[in-house]
Amino acid sequence: VTNITLALDAMGGDRAPTMVLRGADIALERHPEARFLLFGDEARIAPLLAKLPRLAKATTLQHTDEVVLDDAKPSLALRTGRKSSMRLAIDAVADGRADGVVSAGNTGALMAMAKFALKTLPGIDRPAIATLFPTRRGESVVLDLGANIECDAENLVQFAVMGDVFARTVLGLPQPLVGLLNVGSEDLKGNDAVRGAGARLRGDSPIRFYGFVEGDDIAAGTVDVIVTDGFTGNVTVKAIEGVAKLFGESLRDSFRYSLSARIGYVFARGALKKLAARLDPRRYNGAMFLGLAGIAVKSHGSTDAFGFANAIGVAIDLKVGGVLPKIIDELARLNAARTHEPSGGVVTASI
Amino acid sequence: VTNITLALDAMGGDRAPTMVLRGADIALERHPEARFLLFGDEARIAPLLAKLPRLAKATTLQHTDEVVLDDAKPSLALRTGRKSSMRLAIDAVADGRADGVVSAGNTGALMAMAKFALKTLPGIDRPAIATLFPTRRGESVVLDLGANIECDAENLVQFAVMGDVFARTVLGLPQPLVGLLNVGSEDLKGNDAVRGAGARLRGDSPIRFYGFVEGDDIAAGTVDVIVTDGFTGNVTVKAIEGVAKLFGESLRDSFRYSLSARIGYVFARGALKKLAARLDPRRYNGAMFLGLAGIAVKSHGSTDAFGFANAIGVAIDLKVGGVLPKIIDELARLNAARTHEPSGGVVTASI
Repeated sequence: VTNITLALDAMGGDRAPTMVLRGADIALERHPEARFLLFGDEARIAPLLAKLPRLAKATTLQHTDEVVLDDAKPSLALRTGRKSSMRLAIDAVADGRADGVVSAGNTGALMAMAKFALKTLPGIDRPAIATLFPTRRGESVVLDLGANIECDAENLVQFAVMGDVFARTVLGLPQPLVGLLNVGSEDLKGNDAVRGAGARLRGDSPIRFYGFVEGDDIAAGTVDVIVTDGFTGNVTVKAIEGVAKLFGESLRDSFRYSLSARIGYVFARGALKKLAARLDPRRYNGAMFLGLAGIAVKSHGSTDAFGFANAIGVAIDLKVGGVLPKIIDELARLNAARTHEPSGGVVTASI
Repeated sequence: VTNITLALDAMGGDRAPTMVLRGADIALERHPEARFLLFGDEARIAPLLAKLPRLAKATTLQHTDEVVLDDAKPSLALRTGRKSSMRLAIDAVADGRADGVVSAGNTGALMAMAKFALKTLPGIDRPAIATLFPTRRGESVVLDLGANIECDAENLVQFAVMGDVFARTVLGLPQPLVGLLNVGSEDLKGNDAVRGAGARLRGDSPIRFYGFVEGDDIAAGTVDVIVTDGFTGNVTVKAIEGVAKLFGESLRDSFRYSLSARIGYVFARGALKKLAARLDPRRYNGAMFLGLAGIAVKSHGSTDAFGFANAIGVAIDLKVGGVLPKIIDELARLNAARTHEPSGGVVTASI
């Protein structure tokens, strides 16, 4: 096992830097080969590191006072945040000192800086944000979660390629099943972008394409990869998170509803805790910025050390699994398939 | 109380006509003033009616053998389905014999036929599909659920007006709070349509506008009315339904997991049944086609008699509450507000 070095934005996230350091310590327990470059306020980080001797040994700290604020506009952060903990962590990947970056800070700023400093992979027009989601059958990949508000057919096809590689790398699936999110399963449903991407993926392509899927197919686990534009993906994933929270709270309220329900909870506690653990959002923390010429993982800002450790785990899996060369390789296969297929352009169906 | 007459498509839905007739019988118990015009196959309906004497007394049956198939294309159904049970029920509203139509059949065909036969209200460019949704605070209205795959700012503003009137009529709220679904709360977030509609609703309008809301605000009940385009609305609502189903199944599995969990279920059963009743999708059955010059309610095709009775209840509430004159009135107020405001055009922000 070779060493893997990750650059961590120690100042990003609601409970940073404590959450970041404790998370790195948990990740180190699972991946003893990991090494960390930490970027942030030495006065706050050094005392924490002193209490985590195992982490301290695996870590190099680089001080900076500057931080990207949570409500900073991406364009402003890009122009003025060159000495921020987030940017310095990204730069460490750009100049080869680190194999990937993990931050729980401002998503828009992280994307803008990562795009600028790391560049996109050859053949990729726009990066996308991907995450894992619990389903009835296990876990699925969903992308894009908000990097691209408007997408054309070609963007969606590229997302399909990237999502396929993500599922092979992180879920270990030999040939993931890929679906395009739409309002119905028939070929003529949807807007031009979705219909065009569907026509292209149904043609000669290295992707194992299922066809169109609908909203309820996400939780059902009908496919391994759900491809959609960033507007729909962002709204849908947040809507699902909101409903999951409502269910959890309603269930808790139910068990407080009567003495009998409280007694019931005592007996059912073990089984309910197993369920809660499987659906725990911290388990699915760590959204990958796919399509960049470098590994960049975004953690939820509100997560804790356990969740942050999982985001670090995603970055390690992506590096070990060779996600970047695999995306380049699969794009080449997609383009080769297209040149063998004279009718491979966008097909815009009319209703 | 004056009589209300509803036209029912007796042949639409997975378990039609039995489900439709039993549903009408349940609705009649709640609304003894209701009268029904039933359209469908007499050979199948008459024996069922004979077993429901109360319903038989309140019902006029008109025979037809023709049915719109669930997978029929809307355009084809419109051209060839003039004698179908669905179309005859809609025609009864168009020529004033009925106050509204309820069908559990093919959604696209129902919309196409209703638009053709009933026409849209003056001032409405495109009808939208609206439904109620359980939230942490009670219930909210969500629209559009799929009638309009692509929407501009003006469409979204009209949806806001219709959703506002729907919430006042069905939820009885004096001044509902309206939100536009987006990927963030800041004014510059989103696509042109959402930003333009946001700018217009923030201006002088009769709508109590909250601003942009995100996916998780749906379940949180942040606003009373959630406005979005038909693509996002369709995918989001189905995604939520899928997650709700996954939760229900996972919870059932948990209570079967061990003897202790089974015992726990026995004690907690009362509280859990209360929760299940509150979140029961049949309670929220009945999507309104808003913006037509007539009341048309779509029931889920897979619902049972209890769910279909609720869809009939929605149609009755809309008629009693005077939803159509209220929409016309509120559109007039919106347009009056605009003429008092010189800068009231579409404002398209740039990023």
